[in-house]
Amino acid sequence: MVSARPLKVALLGCGVVGSQVARLMTTHAHDLAARIGAPVELAGVAVRRPDRLREGVPPELVTTDAAALAAREDIDVAVEVIGGIEPARSLIATAFEAGASVVTANKALLAEDGPALYAMAEKHGADLYYEAAVAGAIPLLRPLRESLAGDTVNRVLGIVNGTTNFILDRMETSGAGYGEALAEATALGYAEADPTADVEGFDAAAKAAILAGIAFHTRVRLDDVHREGLTEVTAADIASARRMGCTVKLLAICERAADGRSVTARVHPAMIPLTHPLASVREAYNAVFVEADSAGRLMFYGPGAGGAPTASAVLGDLVAACRNKVTGARGPGESAYTQLPVAPMGEVVTRYHISLDVADKPGVLSQVAAVFADHDVSIDTVRQQGKDGEASLVVVTHRAPDAALSATVDTLRGLDTVRGVASIMRVEGE
Amino acid sequence: MVSARPLKVALLGCGVVGSQVARLMTTHAHDLAARIGAPVELAGVAVRRPDRLREGVPPELVTTDAAALAAREDIDVAVEVIGGIEPARSLIATAFEAGASVVTANKALLAEDGPALYAMAEKHGADLYYEAAVAGAIPLLRPLRESLAGDTVNRVLGIVNGTTNFILDRMETSGAGYGEALAEATALGYAEADPTADVEGFDAAAKAAILAGIAFHTRVRLDDVHREGLTEVTAADIASARRMGCTVKLLAICERAADGRSVTARVHPAMIPLTHPLASVREAYNAVFVEADSAGRLMFYGPGAGGAPTASAVLGDLVAACRNKVTGARGPGESAYTQLPVAPMGEVVTRYHISLDVADKPGVLSQVAAVFADHDVSIDTVRQQGKDGEASLVVVTHRAPDAALSATVDTLRGLDTVRGVASIMRVEGE
Repeated sequence: MVSARPLKVALLGCGVVGSQVARLMTTHAHDLAARIGAPVELAGVAVRRPDRLREGVPPELVTTDAAALAAREDIDVAVEVIGGIEPARSLIATAFEAGASVVTANKALLAEDGPALYAMAEKHGADLYYEAAVAGAIPLLRPLRESLAGDTVNRVLGIVNGTTNFILDRMETSGAGYGEALAEATALGYAEADPTADVEGFDAAAKAAILAGIAFHTRVRLDDVHREGLTEVTAADIASARRMGCTVKLLAICERAADGRSVTARVHPAMIPLTHPLASVREAYNAVFVEADSAGRLMFYGPGAGGAPTASAVLGDLVAACRNKVTGARGPGESAYTQLPVAPMGEVVTRYHISLDVADKPGVLSQVAAVFADHDVSIDTVRQQGKDGEASLVVVTHRAPDAALSATVDTLRGLDTVRGVASIMRVEGE
Repeated sequence: MVSARPLKVALLGCGVVGSQVARLMTTHAHDLAARIGAPVELAGVAVRRPDRLREGVPPELVTTDAAALAAREDIDVAVEVIGGIEPARSLIATAFEAGASVVTANKALLAEDGPALYAMAEKHGADLYYEAAVAGAIPLLRPLRESLAGDTVNRVLGIVNGTTNFILDRMETSGAGYGEALAEATALGYAEADPTADVEGFDAAAKAAILAGIAFHTRVRLDDVHREGLTEVTAADIASARRMGCTVKLLAICERAADGRSVTARVHPAMIPLTHPLASVREAYNAVFVEADSAGRLMFYGPGAGGAPTASAVLGDLVAACRNKVTGARGPGESAYTQLPVAPMGEVVTRYHISLDVADKPGVLSQVAAVFADHDVSIDTVRQQGKDGEASLVVVTHRAPDAALSATVDTLRGLDTVRGVASIMRVEGE
């Protein structure tokens, strides 16, 4: 039953995602109206370059004055797909002030300023939806915020950056080094010309902050997320992972401490067993594991980026925001009541794979083992390989606090018999 | 901010799922109140056997008069976890009439009478939620109803029955026959004493009807779902699947026809490639693939049954229904506006694996191939195996309508040189 007045949507940004949103709003107008209970119309499209041809976007809707579009009082929902902090933040503030609900795909802004955005939405009685900000088309935030609202989430572990997964997948399957795999990713359009945000883990860290906040009903800032990129992962690391039945993935990991009194959030490369469902996530796909008290282990898998998949998530939110406008309802607001502190990385407890270059002489293993024991880090397995008077020692530990492992490595570096620490990588997913 | 009056919940049924719901409502009362914005209290628990001890359920709340509990006008949300058609249907009707919203895990009732339940909810301005009815703890219905509300779903393909997946997994890993694997499933509590609903596919068919209706915004009744169980799957079928790089799964498959003018829903055993993500779903786990125009391929994975996982889904819905009561909002109602007809099984187009016992003499293959050609069913591969004057012929077809395949098999059965049709199985997931 479609009877109400048409709802008006302002589209802020018309790039890869925005142009798909505009296209789908036009081609799917009939379905959207039926699902919302009212017709929905594109009232304006703010762009930077008005001269560029945009298929399916009526030219008369295009404007370069995004602020004026956001300020229009006849707009029901503003869709922000510009990205970055400014002008996105100001435009969203303007839209809320003008009475609109906001749908955004902006992970950076949510991670930096989520609570302020929620407060604006609350103040103006509007909705804030941002499913597309994490893991593209994969329904993940709504399940966490709503489907699991009666459960206790203990852990979120996921591949949330497609570029780095593509690079690691190529290194794994072809034996290529990091540089070569990055070049391939760039050539195929999976990596941007400046890949820093992806390969240094900034993109994944923003998503980890958002996920941790939602999963644990607390506030986690981008600065709270421990971050290591994948630029130092070598072909040797991947071969070494393979020898122990593992593969290397760049993971975002959000955990509630065992005592329930703090949370942690981190992004770093890690080895995971080939038998773990995340190990078989190939190419630029994303997948997120969620562990909850009652639900057990859930996994969500799908395309983590791209214009159409991200637009699918934006439109799902747009339908929700529009339905609420029609019925006078409100979607869930911020849920940060647990106010759990974010513990430093040193308190994270996990396993480690450490590769050492050592002198090939008797007593080295015993000396190294003593250092681990001194720092209370228990060793699971050791593998020694000799070559030309040098030897390598690969140690895999049991679970230990990150601080204890760091102290162990510092002491190891000081030993005469240890020529170097070739690599340190965490082992997850067991 | 928790300020509103307490919300009252009637729990109708206190078996495996209900007792977990009661436990979680008590132990998680603080979290639930914070997430809902009002305290929530268990106002009554309807049971059949009041003498049974129920840990965590205050005895004074227990009643055998379910109808009276459902009729109480102070109840905000009724949770129905009795299962089956009656008395569940009457109790839900009573609860709606008394002004309550309803959360249910009742797949049989939803598949049989979903539209009537929705109509009651609509009439009384109440909510109807039933995430737990399909795939237990896995958030699946909310993502389909809400996250993908701006997309066009073309296909839902899933393992939605844990018992049969456990049986097939055991047959696959141990080489056991169906009877032996069923006995193991029964001994371990994965199969009920009367396993008919699971092994004959009734349970999965009810879920397929629900999924198809939601995915395609139409009405699909249980009777519309083509259903074949797994009782005729043999160890030979599984070995044969393995030889072509496949495994056998009992799948629920809902599809929109290529022309968009009809839908189909079916449950049957099928071969799927080992490389397909559903192939690695082991034991009693469930997983559902969703293919949508813009989102692409999504997968949802997790525990499909069990008291605590199902209770997690029920509580998620309970939080949603309670939030709506607090804010005066309504969740999404029925969306069946496309009114797409359900096409018969004969119109389903897929691939087939057919195993024939034939006479071991020249010309048989040519004769058999001619029958396929006569019915316009194109052959992909043929494998011949001779043994003691008899031979077996394994034919894998390209995509063809089910009716054409059935006619082909009928003709084959009439050939002198065909001693028997050992098995016919569809090949999916490519």
